[in-house]
Amino acid sequence: MEQVRALFDAHVEKWLAELPVGELHAPMAYMMRLPAKRVRPILTLLSCELFGGQAKNVLDEALGVELFHNFTLMHDDIMDNSTLRRGMSTVHEKWNANTAILSGDAMLVRAYQMMGCDPGVLAIFNRSALEVCEGQQQDMDFEKRKDVSLDEYRGMIRLKTAVLLDCALRIGACKAGASPNDQDLIGTFGEQLGLAFQMRDDLLDAFGETNRTGKEQGGDLRNGKKTWLLITALQRADELNDATLRNELAKPIVERNVVPMIKALRALGVQRDAEAEAHRLETVAFNALEAINQPDQRKLPLRHLAEALRGRVS
Amino acid sequence: MEQVRALFDAHVEKWLAELPVGELHAPMAYMMRLPAKRVRPILTLLSCELFGGQAKNVLDEALGVELFHNFTLMHDDIMDNSTLRRGMSTVHEKWNANTAILSGDAMLVRAYQMMGCDPGVLAIFNRSALEVCEGQQQDMDFEKRKDVSLDEYRGMIRLKTAVLLDCALRIGACKAGASPNDQDLIGTFGEQLGLAFQMRDDLLDAFGETNRTGKEQGGDLRNGKKTWLLITALQRADELNDATLRNELAKPIVERNVVPMIKALRALGVQRDAEAEAHRLETVAFNALEAINQPDQRKLPLRHLAEALRGRVS
Repeated sequence: MEQVRALFDAHVEKWLAELPVGELHAPMAYMMRLPAKRVRPILTLLSCELFGGQAKNVLDEALGVELFHNFTLMHDDIMDNSTLRRGMSTVHEKWNANTAILSGDAMLVRAYQMMGCDPGVLAIFNRSALEVCEGQQQDMDFEKRKDVSLDEYRGMIRLKTAVLLDCALRIGACKAGASPNDQDLIGTFGEQLGLAFQMRDDLLDAFGETNRTGKEQGGDLRNGKKTWLLITALQRADELNDATLRNELAKPIVERNVVPMIKALRALGVQRDAEAEAHRLETVAFNALEAINQPDQRKLPLRHLAEALRGRVS
Repeated sequence: MEQVRALFDAHVEKWLAELPVGELHAPMAYMMRLPAKRVRPILTLLSCELFGGQAKNVLDEALGVELFHNFTLMHDDIMDNSTLRRGMSTVHEKWNANTAILSGDAMLVRAYQMMGCDPGVLAIFNRSALEVCEGQQQDMDFEKRKDVSLDEYRGMIRLKTAVLLDCALRIGACKAGASPNDQDLIGTFGEQLGLAFQMRDDLLDAFGETNRTGKEQGGDLRNGKKTWLLITALQRADELNDATLRNELAKPIVERNVVPMIKALRALGVQRDAEAEAHRLETVAFNALEAINQPDQRKLPLRHLAEALRGRVS
């Protein structure tokens, strides 16, 4: 995996070195230079190798996936009014909103540039790109709504987060000539991993340590973000006539105290159940990986990556 | 040409009918339903026919070009703070900026979806899409600068406007199997026509009739927009120590009087020379069309379209 990561990093460096100067491209370079785990492009490379392809033959597509991911971050940060991204200023903060809009647009074009003209790859990417936009739209819609069901939340997360892991893996498989059935299996691995990934993210937000995550503990709770955790907790609390959470949420955001909210989540068993649910999703992911008819040895890097994501603390 | 227009309109209607509901797609439908000349997609269809192809075989690509054009309008309107587009509310006014950003993103993805996976078409479209972003960036950069040369202005207009006409024609030619040389010639026709188109646009802004253009006469002048007209006029006025324009531009925007500014443009011979320059560009365009080795009969629709653009009053 370190080899694949080094291969990808070198490819990014080469791409960055050839980027034109000017305000259209500087924000792209800035985003691509922020410290990042590069999960998605590594999935593309590993998936290609799983099906007998060579990682070096899908470096462009892997970069395209990472550019697309960063384009969505650049635009989402404008929409969400975020000031920090990976501990650094967001593009619209460092430059301005117009630059972030336009540079993001150009970044999406550059992502397509990297995708080449393989009909299979383009079909996967086109479908996924649209679904990711649909997910962000749902996320914004949900903010305005009081009632969001667990199913709706899962559907939104699938689109906003899981689809791109699915896409990254499918593209690698497609380029290696994997059968449609194998593409579906590796896609399922990515999708379920993505759902678990988001669950772990929500858990870290509520129960992670600030000095490791770099984020305020309970930030999502304070903002009343309707995650799996909060939706489930509110359901259970209502059944028990426990008003702790609703009382805090009734206050203006700045006056909310996250400490009793986090405590309530634990007391209601939501932390435990969310961890169990993340584990269940990871199991579905691993089962899909197992079902692929390839030597076990070849599956190891993807399994290791999935295990690293499961155990992450930031 | 009416036939081709009807063919394209029917294709747009079909596309609109199949569009999912919801806030991601509604703004796309809204933009695509605004009254429009459809110059770019018609160019794609006519260019395909010029080289012996069938218009019905490039309807998707023509729609892709029009979707791309409307995506740029949607995002440019946010960046330029425009409230009106073709006499109707802009998307960020009717909905909000976030919806305009996200729906525009999805519209760009849908444009790519229409482009298919022909390597020639994708190479043209990828290059052009990036250049159009570069043009918008330059346009924004120039607003902050006091000194913009005629060459810089022309370069910006080429990227922001002319490149997409070039692209629309090239894609039609490419799909019809035109030679690289013929693709260059039809591209030049589009590029020069685009430069002339912008010149006519600037002339209409300054000298057109509000009841025909639907815009305030001299709006660009009031805003001090550095067009060919204003750059040339300021150069000449400075040589003649005529301070009319500079005096108006020194005032706050709301206090500027466009009547003496328009008068100054006429007195300095800028209107006449701009018309001559537009005519010169159109001649270069027509010469490129002439140089294409195809029966004259096949060139007629493109020539008529170009002549209609030359004589337009709105």
